[in-house]
Amino acid sequence: MPGSSFGKLFSVTTFGESHGGAVGAVVEGITPGLKISEEEIQAELNRRKPGQSEVTTPRKESDTIHILSGWFEGRATGTPMLLILYNEDQQPSAYDDIKDKFRPGHADYTYLKKYGIRDHRGSGRASGRETAARVAAGAIARKMLSAEGISILAYTKRAAGISCTTFEPDEIEKNPMRACDPVAAEEMVRRVRQLADEHDSTGGIVECIVSGVPAGLGEPVFDKLDADLARAMLSLGAVKGFEIGSGFSCADMTGSSHNDWMDRSGFKTNHAGGILGGISTGSDIIFRIAVKPTSSIEKTQETITIKGEETAISTKGRHDPCICPRIVPVVEAMAALVLIDHLKRQAGS
Amino acid sequence: MPGSSFGKLFSVTTFGESHGGAVGAVVEGITPGLKISEEEIQAELNRRKPGQSEVTTPRKESDTIHILSGWFEGRATGTPMLLILYNEDQQPSAYDDIKDKFRPGHADYTYLKKYGIRDHRGSGRASGRETAARVAAGAIARKMLSAEGISILAYTKRAAGISCTTFEPDEIEKNPMRACDPVAAEEMVRRVRQLADEHDSTGGIVECIVSGVPAGLGEPVFDKLDADLARAMLSLGAVKGFEIGSGFSCADMTGSSHNDWMDRSGFKTNHAGGILGGISTGSDIIFRIAVKPTSSIEKTQETITIKGEETAISTKGRHDPCICPRIVPVVEAMAALVLIDHLKRQAGS
Amino acid sequence: MPGSSFGKLFSVTTFGESHGGAVGAVVEGITPGLKISEEEIQAELNRRKPGQSEVTTPRKESDTIHILSGWFEGRATGTPMLLILYNEDQQPSAYDDIKDKFRPGHADYTYLKKYGIRDHRGSGRASGRETAARVAAGAIARKMLSAEGISILAYTKRAAGISCTTFEPDEIEKNPMRACDPVAAEEMVRRVRQLADEHDSTGGIVECIVSGVPAGLGEPVFDKLDADLARAMLSLGAVKGFEIGSGFSCADMTGSSHNDWMDRSGFKTNHAGGILGGISTGSDIIFRIAVKPTSSIEKTQETITIKGEETAISTKGRHDPCICPRIVPVVEAMAALVLIDHLKRQAGS
Amino acid sequence: MPGSSFGKLFSVTTFGESHGGAVGAVVEGITPGLKISEEEIQAELNRRKPGQSEVTTPRKESDTIHILSGWFEGRATGTPMLLILYNEDQQPSAYDDIKDKFRPGHADYTYLKKYGIRDHRGSGRASGRETAARVAAGAIARKMLSAEGISILAYTKRAAGISCTTFEPDEIEKNPMRACDPVAAEEMVRRVRQLADEHDSTGGIVECIVSGVPAGLGEPVFDKLDADLARAMLSLGAVKGFEIGSGFSCADMTGSSHNDWMDRSGFKTNHAGGILGGISTGSDIIFRIAVKPTSSIEKTQETITIKGEETAISTKGRHDPCICPRIVPVVEAMAALVLIDHLKRQAGS
Repeated sequence: MPGSSFGKLFSVTTFGESHGGAVGAVVEGITPGLKISEEEIQAELNRRKPGQSEVTTPRKESDTIHILSGWFEGRATGTPMLLILYNEDQQPSAYDDIKDKFRPGHADYTYLKKYGIRDHRGSGRASGRETAARVAAGAIARKMLSAEGISILAYTKRAAGISCTTFEPDEIEKNPMRACDPVAAEEMVRRVRQLADEHDSTGGIVECIVSGVPAGLGEPVFDKLDADLARAMLSLGAVKGFEIGSGFSCADMTGSSHNDWMDRSGFKTNHAGGILGGISTGSDIIFRIAVKPTSSIEKTQETITIKGEETAISTKGRHDPCICPRIVPVVEAMAALVLIDHLKRQAGS
Repeated sequence: MPGSSFGKLFSVTTFGESHGGAVGAVVEGITPGLKISEEEIQAELNRRKPGQSEVTTPRKESDTIHILSGWFEGRATGTPMLLILYNEDQQPSAYDDIKDKFRPGHADYTYLKKYGIRDHRGSGRASGRETAARVAAGAIARKMLSAEGISILAYTKRAAGISCTTFEPDEIEKNPMRACDPVAAEEMVRRVRQLADEHDSTGGIVECIVSGVPAGLGEPVFDKLDADLARAMLSLGAVKGFEIGSGFSCADMTGSSHNDWMDRSGFKTNHAGGILGGISTGSDIIFRIAVKPTSSIEKTQETITIKGEETAISTKGRHDPCICPRIVPVVEAMAALVLIDHLKRQAGS
Repeated sequence: MPGSSFGKLFSVTTFGESHGGAVGAVVEGITPGLKISEEEIQAELNRRKPGQSEVTTPRKESDTIHILSGWFEGRATGTPMLLILYNEDQQPSAYDDIKDKFRPGHADYTYLKKYGIRDHRGSGRASGRETAARVAAGAIARKMLSAEGISILAYTKRAAGISCTTFEPDEIEKNPMRACDPVAAEEMVRRVRQLADEHDSTGGIVECIVSGVPAGLGEPVFDKLDADLARAMLSLGAVKGFEIGSGFSCADMTGSSHNDWMDRSGFKTNHAGGILGGISTGSDIIFRIAVKPTSSIEKTQETITIKGEETAISTKGRHDPCICPRIVPVVEAMAALVLIDHLKRQAGS
Repeated sequence: MPGSSFGKLFSVTTFGESHGGAVGAVVEGITPGLKISEEEIQAELNRRKPGQSEVTTPRKESDTIHILSGWFEGRATGTPMLLILYNEDQQPSAYDDIKDKFRPGHADYTYLKKYGIRDHRGSGRASGRETAARVAAGAIARKMLSAEGISILAYTKRAAGISCTTFEPDEIEKNPMRACDPVAAEEMVRRVRQLADEHDSTGGIVECIVSGVPAGLGEPVFDKLDADLARAMLSLGAVKGFEIGSGFSCADMTGSSHNDWMDRSGFKTNHAGGILGGISTGSDIIFRIAVKPTSSIEKTQETITIKGEETAISTKGRHDPCICPRIVPVVEAMAALVLIDHLKRQAGS
């Protein structure tokens, strides 16, 4: 059953594989008359695209956005907008030697089990490239949210075993890890490069803060705002966990210490992470995701062929030793898709 | 916008508040001809209902299930089944002294912000009682899954600072904490009772294992099986986090140690938690949730009135000092709803 | 796949068969704070219920509405409202002699083909009784629409070969046919009673006018306002056709005569029937439906048994010789569900 | 709220205007491994495209289909397929003189009311060109249906006041009217050309037969198969009416003559049009639609400007004097989308 659409009032339908003709999205629910340029969307895409730093894959993709519908004289018309990125730098031959092998940690095996056929060039829909479409759609959502005073900021909180200990928002885009602590970032880079040299990779934790959210967004009982955020984050292939506010640390707390008391000026703490009963409190929404280490590594691993024979595999070249810095704009985009949808749901309720 | 329905091919629409006439669900997508009795559903409800042990609320609710449609001669007809539990033991006057106050950690404030009106009797849709409807629907889903060889088992993994160190599935239903380690369970009970004596509460971690899942369930890219599980779990008011397989520990792992290698007999490890690229691998699905300490405590807390005046509050009597044992059947039910839906989606794809 | 829900922002999920415990609906998307009483809903139900006149079935059902959730101190809370009507006057034994036969014109055969099982008592979900739930939900929708200045009026336009030639809205509720022409109504009654005496039935045409609709409702391209009205009307088992504005007569018109010209005061004609390109023009929405003659007749007919043997059948007693007057409130209710949903969709867009 | 998606298990999301960069569709739910070529889709598009005969618009559009995703080595992969047709022959200047006027019978006025902005080049989403995307998606659906033995045939039944009196399926594609009676077709062409000479247009009736449908498709109670067909047909801008089986003629029939009796070999008649209680009977599904006369005519008409001033308008050149022959493949495509969706719904239920 179709699963490539996200959102009810602001809906995004993505399409495309890493090695077909194009990836992109059809976006519906954009405010009619919204000013939006290809350049604005491109700016967000550039934050996600490969080859931007020493800790990301050197693969080359221009990731150039084209708007082919729902757009007139620089404004959204309110009808479906087609955002498309044509595929380039396709080197299907690069995949020839892994053509019949299941790459560990990849979805090769599960896709074959599900669909019964296999496009061995790249990772098909499970390719990180699919998220470019989300970032493009997210750029529009963020512009709409911005008009409502809502902003979203994500950053690497931990990677390669190093945690940020300061929070310096202005530093995030200045370091290749998109970490919120420039000193920690340096150490992260050092370790990540070392892992890259060892043909290995590392995971990390990305945190996201949504500010300016009015109280009252979110729908009881299944479409809670935090439930939708969790789903949005786990819809990213590399994500193994989601927590909001106190998160897993709540397990060891007591009710009296966890409850956010109120006084005249509002909530005194924010263990809730900005959401109570699935509805925004008006405090900042704060959540974190666990990002697994990149599955594609050159290091030799054990696996089987599609015929079930045991073999070894080394997925050559061009991988991100740590995906955190490139997943940051995707996290922001997905959070934006959730927020804009709930903002519109509240307006329609 | 409506948010009380869950599932696309097996859909559950819940209704009801703790203090109206009834709670329940309309369930559609049940296999026509499925044998199901009120007793079977009741058995699951009894696992969730109040008053079952020394660590749960002593509140009395018979939670008696009635099937009022879609049912003929002990079998599902395939049409919508109304599952209803009439409300009893309503003591609205019990809420009189907190009528104008926001209970810390509760959704009182956010519901008022969202809807502009307030039913001060209990917690409305945010009441744990709403989950009885989910358990009832889940009982049917589990029966359908069972016919496909899929079983679901949840249990308390950690509570009040104590972790289980053994996994003894047969012991789970024998201890009031529904913990998988009977020795740890005893210590948990001791601490939980102590916290109850202090008019306080504690959180915990619940783990869930889904066995017998065929490879190939889950829909790229937004309706990934793990994304839907995350959403399902975060749709429970008390849950602050979700992780699958390696979960948050993946952040510090390397690709070479995290990737699940394969040999002739299948996956050699299960860091993925049974899902790759959003699609089931055929291994057990294993996930954990963070359960916050019960918000309702008698301990005096600071809050404000609906007029914004600062005040103190003590929510009297009848609370669960630790909700873990009662959330276990709800977790199983929600997992069942996700699984049955994806099983049907795969059949329809 | 579930098909018992209608509407996206104002959603109605119906349940129940003529011979189970109850029929009813869960309604979500009601304006929080809306004043609504069981009496108001009952008034609409009474217009649909059996036994109200000489041209309707004499079957007795009190059709008493109960609101069991989402309702507090006479107001909607904004959460799902359970509307329930318990079944009475069940005479399953009345169905014993047709238990193994397919009633011509009924859905007995198709339900058995679809579900593989059969509840022979009444018509299951295909029973006209299911529409009581729609009327109840529609009563709420109409109240919400009324606050926006939108009103809906349906009436019998033609029955038993007699067409109304005048339009006297005040007369509609005064004659048992709910016809808009009291003189034609008298002749209709005469003929309908004659057909009833012959153990036969007749069809008719019901027209509906929606007034006060603002311009701009309806969503390109699949969720056009007229497309949704068509679907809503054809979702009634007895309806075989739908036309809007000029309807089928447009086939023989020319563009120059069909196009509705505009002048300073608006549209000069209304061949469009109030909708252009799927979006409301601000003119009255006018549509008509074809209502087939009641399938249940006492007259002996040829059919087969569930084993495929040829046999004769006479469905005894208590049928409506013409369903038009009782379908009128259902048409109004369904139109209301479509309109309120699109009104909310426009607000959320 | 988004309205550009159709279908639940076989979903089609269309995008594009007549004068932007492209029109097309994202199609999800295609059988993995299905063989499909651009040529097969093109063949259907060629039946809809302008300039094919003396009774259609001479406008030139190559309407060349490109498949840009979900496709590998001539087979569908099961993931979203992007079908795209780049726009050509754009002559926006041709619209300059009607830029500020509402074309009678067009959706110019309602789109402006809805969105507040206007792309005066062509008809935006209300353009007939949007239906090319439906035809392309429908070509895939038809191929899938064909594998299940289901075929769809539509044809002009009446146009310019002339009705077909014979049914000769082999003649349909041989005459420019796509009429099922070649003699009537000749007279239709004569009259249509005469109307064209008078700068006017005509409407008609298109009939559609779906053969090979198994009994049991369709979902009670709102997603009835006929309800979904009605919605699909009314989602075409030119359609003012839908009827199935006996259609509007049922109004004057009696139950005893309308009911389709059964004998050993099945239904003896087909007044139902192949659907009872919203579920297919196994008989042919037969429905008809009323097609309004083309709104765009050169004949001078009265209208107003966007500022409300009265004026005259003549929409110059290149219109279809009768849209029936070009709407035939669109009707088939939409019927295919409904059928394939319900076929999959039944498989998933």
